[in-house]
Amino acid sequence: MASVTCGGEQVLITVDQSLEGVHFILAEHGAQAVGAKAMNRNLSDVAAMAALPVAAVAAIALPKGFLRKDAEGIYLGLRTAGDAFGCPVVGGDISAWNGKLVICVTVLARPAGLRTVLRSGAKAGDAICVTGRLGGAWHSRRHLNIVPRIKEGRQLASRYNLHSMIDISDGLAGDLAHICHESSLGAEILAASLPVHPDATDGKEALAGADKISPDRRKLLAALEDGEDYELLFTMPEEQAQDLLRTQPLSIPVTRIGAITEAKELVLVNEDGRREPLPGVAWQHVI
Amino acid sequence: MASVTCGGEQVLITVDQSLEGVHFILAEHGAQAVGAKAMNRNLSDVAAMAALPVAAVAAIALPKGFLRKDAEGIYLGLRTAGDAFGCPVVGGDISAWNGKLVICVTVLARPAGLRTVLRSGAKAGDAICVTGRLGGAWHSRRHLNIVPRIKEGRQLASRYNLHSMIDISDGLAGDLAHICHESSLGAEILAASLPVHPDATDGKEALAGADKISPDRRKLLAALEDGEDYELLFTMPEEQAQDLLRTQPLSIPVTRIGAITEAKELVLVNEDGRREPLPGVAWQHVI
Repeated sequence: MASVTCGGEQVLITVDQSLEGVHFILAEHGAQAVGAKAMNRNLSDVAAMAALPVAAVAAIALPKGFLRKDAEGIYLGLRTAGDAFGCPVVGGDISAWNGKLVICVTVLARPAGLRTVLRSGAKAGDAICVTGRLGGAWHSRRHLNIVPRIKEGRQLASRYNLHSMIDISDGLAGDLAHICHESSLGAEILAASLPVHPDATDGKEALAGADKISPDRRKLLAALEDGEDYELLFTMPEEQAQDLLRTQPLSIPVTRIGAITEAKELVLVNEDGRREPLPGVAWQHVI
Repeated sequence: MASVTCGGEQVLITVDQSLEGVHFILAEHGAQAVGAKAMNRNLSDVAAMAALPVAAVAAIALPKGFLRKDAEGIYLGLRTAGDAFGCPVVGGDISAWNGKLVICVTVLARPAGLRTVLRSGAKAGDAICVTGRLGGAWHSRRHLNIVPRIKEGRQLASRYNLHSMIDISDGLAGDLAHICHESSLGAEILAASLPVHPDATDGKEALAGADKISPDRRKLLAALEDGEDYELLFTMPEEQAQDLLRTQPLSIPVTRIGAITEAKELVLVNEDGRREPLPGVAWQHVI
């Protein structure tokens, strides 16, 4: 997500590519769901800035011989998902190639009266909170029914002094690492407090060596590492977080899962008090 | 290219994907040239609206095992090409995948005091003009040294009442078809007036059956069909075109190549007066 000024007005831009075999499997998921996901991933980025979407453009690389009905399905998915949040598809670029399906969506957004929340604003001592429940989104196909948390992001930012926010696409651990990296701080996550989704076991059971890992540990790893949840991860002053947790003003639950630390490490504190490096952290470099 | 309004201000958006094997061959062209081309293709779209670029974002899908130096080369190419026209790369998204290299660039632009020129505004009787010379851009590698005609687009739009404009990426015939389609009109192109580039023979000679086509015809087809020229194709009132041709105010030549017609056909008028359907027209559908 980036910000530029056009004619004195702040315009936010987010771009996300959805790749066959990485973000979707066309034959399994279906064209319209794939198009909707490509749009919703971007809208989720907009949500994480507490912004409102304005419009989208899409570039699509179609494998040669691609079915016309699938191309139309993708476009219908893009359009329907965008329209649901006031984000029309206003233009695009389609090419055919001897490669796999690529859908690249760019969304313009505006702050619409709220201060834009960045990844880089976390402060030591901040409470770390998350919306919803985490884990198992790919295997359960929840990732095909993303509800971008645009309303929730704006509700939070209008009531509280959010210091930083990101949406969980890579996985809780990986996306927390983005906040910590950009804020030059660390974090402690409390294993006992993680809001683990009931779907969170499915995927990990399929992994090799699953029998060596206890079911509880598998669920924990799924919540930390799976990604594709598209929930909001944010940090804020501890006393404000206590008010948020008590009042629960959103239509989805908010959970406090840890705190931002001066020490530049990402630590998981297990239920028995044992500390370990946070599993699932892979530093990803973005332009 | 699309237009939205942000805070009362018109914002133009253009998105173009550059695909391995379609728009570039990394091993032949080199990473930095490939990055520069990906940016310049978008800036050429901006030029065709007589707009000024503001900022760009880039989404890049890297084949697994991609060399770090090539990724850095692409970014350097993107950045250098953008900076040359006041268009910083302000954000992006990088993924690794089991597919070919994709570079998707989105550029925001602004009208900056000029009326935005569209593809859809051509009028019957308009002169059709083009900057520069056409043909052979891929084979001669001229496509790696695109100079986006941003300055020229704005010079033209500030002096003349341009009715429509497009940049030539698909080929003169194909891009003229876009103007005619969106304006619900046709066109007559005069073969004798086409500004054929000296490079225009190379590619066509390599084609099968080249021996059945005269050298002059090969050059003509190259100028009509080759694409990758990134020159400006525009229409305007005939009397204004005469002034433009006489004064030649740009640093590159402008040529009148035909006229817009009421009849919704694309016609090539040969030197001997023989009329034929314009070669190289393939209707391309864009979202």
